[in-house]
Amino acid sequence: MRKLLLLIALLPLTMMAQRVASPNGLVEVIFSLDGTRPQYEMTFKGKPVVKPSHLGLELAKDKHASRGLKETDLMDGFKIAKVENSTFDETWKPVWGETATIRNHYNEMAVTLDQDIKEQHRSIIIRFRVYDDGMGLRYEFPQQKDLNYFLIKEECTEFAMAGDHMAWWITADYDTQEYPIQTTRLSEIPARQKLSFDKRGRLYENGTNERMVDAVVWDNASMTPVPNAVQTALQMRTDDGLYINIHEAACINYATMHLELTGKTTFRSHLTPDATGLKGCMQTPCQTPWRTVMVSDNACDMLSSNLILNLNEPCALDDVSWIHPTKYCGVWWEMIVGKSSWNYTDQYPSIQLDNINWNAAKPNGRHAANNEKVKRYIDFAADNGLDQVLVEGWNVGWEDWANMWKRDVFDFVTPYPDFDIKMLNDYAHSKGVKLLMHHETSSSTQNYERHLEKAYTLMNKYGYDAVKSGYVGDIIPRGDHHYSQSMNDHYLYCIKEAAKHHIMVNAHEATRPTGLCRTYPNLVGNESARGTEYEAFGGSNPDHTVILPFTRLQGGPMDYTPGIFETQLSTWSNNTSYVRSTLVGQLALYVTMYSPLQMAADLPENYAKFMDAFQFIRDVACDWDDSKYLEAEPGDYITVARKAKGTGNWFIGGKCDENGHKSVIKLDFLEKGKNYECTIYADAKDAHYQHNPKAYVITKKTVKQGDTLKLTEAPGGGFAVSLIMK
Amino acid sequence: MRKLLLLIALLPLTMMAQRVASPNGLVEVIFSLDGTRPQYEMTFKGKPVVKPSHLGLELAKDKHASRGLKETDLMDGFKIAKVENSTFDETWKPVWGETATIRNHYNEMAVTLDQDIKEQHRSIIIRFRVYDDGMGLRYEFPQQKDLNYFLIKEECTEFAMAGDHMAWWITADYDTQEYPIQTTRLSEIPARQKLSFDKRGRLYENGTNERMVDAVVWDNASMTPVPNAVQTALQMRTDDGLYINIHEAACINYATMHLELTGKTTFRSHLTPDATGLKGCMQTPCQTPWRTVMVSDNACDMLSSNLILNLNEPCALDDVSWIHPTKYCGVWWEMIVGKSSWNYTDQYPSIQLDNINWNAAKPNGRHAANNEKVKRYIDFAADNGLDQVLVEGWNVGWEDWANMWKRDVFDFVTPYPDFDIKMLNDYAHSKGVKLLMHHETSSSTQNYERHLEKAYTLMNKYGYDAVKSGYVGDIIPRGDHHYSQSMNDHYLYCIKEAAKHHIMVNAHEATRPTGLCRTYPNLVGNESARGTEYEAFGGSNPDHTVILPFTRLQGGPMDYTPGIFETQLSTWSNNTSYVRSTLVGQLALYVTMYSPLQMAADLPENYAKFMDAFQFIRDVACDWDDSKYLEAEPGDYITVARKAKGTGNWFIGGKCDENGHKSVIKLDFLEKGKNYECTIYADAKDAHYQHNPKAYVITKKTVKQGDTLKLTEAPGGGFAVSLIMK
Repeated sequence: MRKLLLLIALLPLTMMAQRVASPNGLVEVIFSLDGTRPQYEMTFKGKPVVKPSHLGLELAKDKHASRGLKETDLMDGFKIAKVENSTFDETWKPVWGETATIRNHYNEMAVTLDQDIKEQHRSIIIRFRVYDDGMGLRYEFPQQKDLNYFLIKEECTEFAMAGDHMAWWITADYDTQEYPIQTTRLSEIPARQKLSFDKRGRLYENGTNERMVDAVVWDNASMTPVPNAVQTALQMRTDDGLYINIHEAACINYATMHLELTGKTTFRSHLTPDATGLKGCMQTPCQTPWRTVMVSDNACDMLSSNLILNLNEPCALDDVSWIHPTKYCGVWWEMIVGKSSWNYTDQYPSIQLDNINWNAAKPNGRHAANNEKVKRYIDFAADNGLDQVLVEGWNVGWEDWANMWKRDVFDFVTPYPDFDIKMLNDYAHSKGVKLLMHHETSSSTQNYERHLEKAYTLMNKYGYDAVKSGYVGDIIPRGDHHYSQSMNDHYLYCIKEAAKHHIMVNAHEATRPTGLCRTYPNLVGNESARGTEYEAFGGSNPDHTVILPFTRLQGGPMDYTPGIFETQLSTWSNNTSYVRSTLVGQLALYVTMYSPLQMAADLPENYAKFMDAFQFIRDVACDWDDSKYLEAEPGDYITVARKAKGTGNWFIGGKCDENGHKSVIKLDFLEKGKNYECTIYADAKDAHYQHNPKAYVITKKTVKQGDTLKLTEAPGGGFAVSLIMK
Repeated sequence: MRKLLLLIALLPLTMMAQRVASPNGLVEVIFSLDGTRPQYEMTFKGKPVVKPSHLGLELAKDKHASRGLKETDLMDGFKIAKVENSTFDETWKPVWGETATIRNHYNEMAVTLDQDIKEQHRSIIIRFRVYDDGMGLRYEFPQQKDLNYFLIKEECTEFAMAGDHMAWWITADYDTQEYPIQTTRLSEIPARQKLSFDKRGRLYENGTNERMVDAVVWDNASMTPVPNAVQTALQMRTDDGLYINIHEAACINYATMHLELTGKTTFRSHLTPDATGLKGCMQTPCQTPWRTVMVSDNACDMLSSNLILNLNEPCALDDVSWIHPTKYCGVWWEMIVGKSSWNYTDQYPSIQLDNINWNAAKPNGRHAANNEKVKRYIDFAADNGLDQVLVEGWNVGWEDWANMWKRDVFDFVTPYPDFDIKMLNDYAHSKGVKLLMHHETSSSTQNYERHLEKAYTLMNKYGYDAVKSGYVGDIIPRGDHHYSQSMNDHYLYCIKEAAKHHIMVNAHEATRPTGLCRTYPNLVGNESARGTEYEAFGGSNPDHTVILPFTRLQGGPMDYTPGIFETQLSTWSNNTSYVRSTLVGQLALYVTMYSPLQMAADLPENYAKFMDAFQFIRDVACDWDDSKYLEAEPGDYITVARKAKGTGNWFIGGKCDENGHKSVIKLDFLEKGKNYECTIYADAKDAHYQHNPKAYVITKKTVKQGDTLKLTEAPGGGFAVSLIMK
């Protein structure tokens, strides 16, 4: 690590603005005091990105903060005590990722602010790190006599946009991120948001006032929407061609941030409260997460940026040898679609775990996680080079698991009678496959923490090394929210405890990621957005997957569970939904939606009908030495080429929205002098996500550096290309 | 167990009242419907004890209760479906207690009520058990199609008193029970309660508007008083000589009950809410705790009653061989008084456990839990027949443990550098003494549960078999209350986990006990009231200890920590408080305040000055084959004789209030034909708790059955007698 202290501007500091520019000089951040209130602004190539915006925190008046806090806020009354500038440049290797190495190069400015009020002296630091593709700022609170404990009523970090930009956003909510993404001008957010809910708070698709599906299915099990506010990562585009993205990095021991519109085009941070309404209980020394603003005039830079990862701390684990990217299939989609069940019996109106003799319970005949089926999935995985088999519904308690605010809902160690945990793991291991554990917590985190050590120990005993966890429903302890400081701590607690057991975590319904996978690379995935499951709940818009990489994926990989080949669910179930993507579009997602964890989510019997196309899922890597975003426009299309880890092979994915797209790909990135066997999985000419989704053409040819591929993506379609070095 | 079904009164049942009387016929309970609302009344020898009072539960309307609940309350719309009467008589042996055996003899009436509203059919059972000394009633909710989950907004069990009785009460509060006890008429409760707090909610002594001590010390760290409501056990006395006591038994998976005045002399149950304001999250089959009303025309019967224990379930532990009554001393009182400190260093403004090098920390020189001092206490225990030595402040984190809403406050396994945990336990064991563990949770239950298994494992490793736990301050998870359903579950969770490790639990600031020690006899003590520590915080009234056995002790033993001989704290510290008891009065408490856990709470150097009096503490038992309450009047005096377990020896204690008391004790209970060496520890003639507390006279003589002892107790004094069979 090389950190060079360039300048300490000593007192007396005037009210003059303090500036720090990115290494290439194109991004500049200016700090100043507006009277006694801190403020900053940000430009890119001289254009305003963030107009002058205030910084500060409003504190709660509470007996618990009485020690060393005389009830003044951290909003104003500041003078600049010290400004330190430095630069930093290092290259680090992620345990897994889109590239083999990542450069972390920024210029830093740390402004120490003193506040002398009512005979107390307090100092805070506002630290800016400016990169060529954006900046991060955070508040730091050193340990000091007059600032030991404090309670946050609200963080008041403003982001004043310079115009009424186009924005890709979802409604702010303390408990769910599974909203359809809206595309509007900033000024249109409040009205569109209102239209998105009916009088009972139920959600409408795109503000059309027409419900796509039944409310019970559509509404999330836990919803607490916030008026006039959106979630991050928020992607924007200015009318003069700038792409701007606001998110956060390294959200640890702090509540997740939303963005509340306080003016037509001005946002202010809005933190997730706990059960008491408080937004943070802080003890110095401490700091906030980084508030990040990415900017470029090329949309591809939004996707290739490593700014969020770079603002996280280096890996905290000594041994990472047990962490590995994973391709998996699983007993899951048939329950999501409604054909089979997680629960074993329908015999009881409700379940108290200790009082049921499971061996005597009457099976409902629909339980998917049974020995026979799981063995078939293990066979399928072994035959097709998949590493693991997820099995949901293996453990007792699914009979009344959801929406009951039931605390003791699962014990995470007791299998249903038709799931022989030892036999199935032994069988899987004999075929070189592992089972992938599933822990649905039903958001009863108190219950989960009580069982965590035994649950992880059971995993070690039977040879599981990864767990998909879930947080459906309202949080227990009751009154808390999914993205509060305390819940964010819970998720990280589980990740740290899992690491002690050499277990990888893929947490669904947990808080949206902020790059923590750099520090804890056993956090191999999150959901934190509408995943493929919603294709069975009425469908997601065709542009959904060409927005997510700009928004949800900024903080870390998503377990999107792509690969649904039989897009017409009614062909094999009673579900009338259909997947709003062509079959080839599903293949493209393995490349365009980066994740070290990739599922082949459809049923083996559905894949069996399209084994030529399934070959791409067999072949595609899920860990990479390099990634090149070739073209992108939020909500329209994304094309990316990636080089598989430790090989010379490349894979290209292209995905588009409902309008289709034509791509011209120059194969500049191939190694000079080498030939590649190129297999192209393309939409057929008349393919269409709605009325002809399974029409595809597979072509093979030999290509070399400098060749060009011309590809046409159908409406809701895409393409996938494998390039195997000969 | 013998349970005889006497009668099933089959349908059709009219609206006529259903009656059930106690085995001796003196207590009668009548159930009827007031229109469609259930109600009950209770008499003793024909006198009204509870006038007709409604029963029912108001339910919360909430999405979590939507399954099988169509938003109707359980208040009315009932008809009687079935009435079952039975009788029960058994004698059981407590693991420890006031008597070797306990008879459980009652007549029972179970009324099944049907409620048919809005096409749903629901049944509940109200079960009455009537004893010769009172009754218990509870609601039972069988599992059924239309009642699976429900949320309690409030339980509406009424207790309409028949007159404006005298009452001994403390203010209802969701978070503390450490109030001075008030003595007023029922009708005076609201006004007295208002006078007890100033505008900032701080507490005044006895409504005098004169604060006895500084607010910071006096006010409890966590207080949420409830207007017009009192805590149970509530002791009353009618003008015609009845003693009535309202409490609850077997409070499991339910919130603790307060009593709210809804009329001048009518109470209604008022449950403790959780962070969301809800008072119960129920899943059938389930039941409420028993609501108990004890009655007699002899005050002694209030003290000798086993009604609360009898209404609890039998012992749930297979092996109880490791549970034992315990006499102990400890490193504690000198910190309470303020002479020394729990914390090791004053160096840091706040502590983050992982970031402190304790070996490098600067000692403050006041840390009591150091090797040298603990060894002295071990020597003292070994020399004086005490079983264990409590050491508080042995583990890191005390620097900023309280009132900060700090979650990660202790780890329960890391000793301070000057506490050599292995050496000290080895040293203690070599002398036949054990150390007694201390776990202050600072009410951060989330943190405690995360560390519980490791903390108990550490205890097993070093040979601890008992823990004093503490819950000072506001609860984490934030917003919850000390006596909510979720917190009551936490306390029981710890007791059950401790039992797996063969660990006895003595929980301070936990919910008031309701007889659970019958089912979980490793719950050997609780605080749950103002203990002796308040004698160092300004003092408790002299009548405090002659009220507690009528109120707080009904549900289970209290770790009152008596035995302060040097009642003038200023003689050895800067504390200006004095103990409002004579020295002999302190001795009496070992007999009058039944507990299997008894502390000799003063410092060895203070005992050294009064070793002749200390002999009683050495001699007195803390487990009994028999107990005879000889005379009692709430707030005035209590005299009790107890026969030490497995011996022929008796111990008698007498304690009185500020007015003194004269006792004439007929030694009828001694074994015929045996002589006893009788040692009498009596207040000297001019003794007085305030200006001459340490004046005592010790006399010895030989006595036999039929002899009489005439004893005079000084104001705030008492007496203690040992009778050793020759």
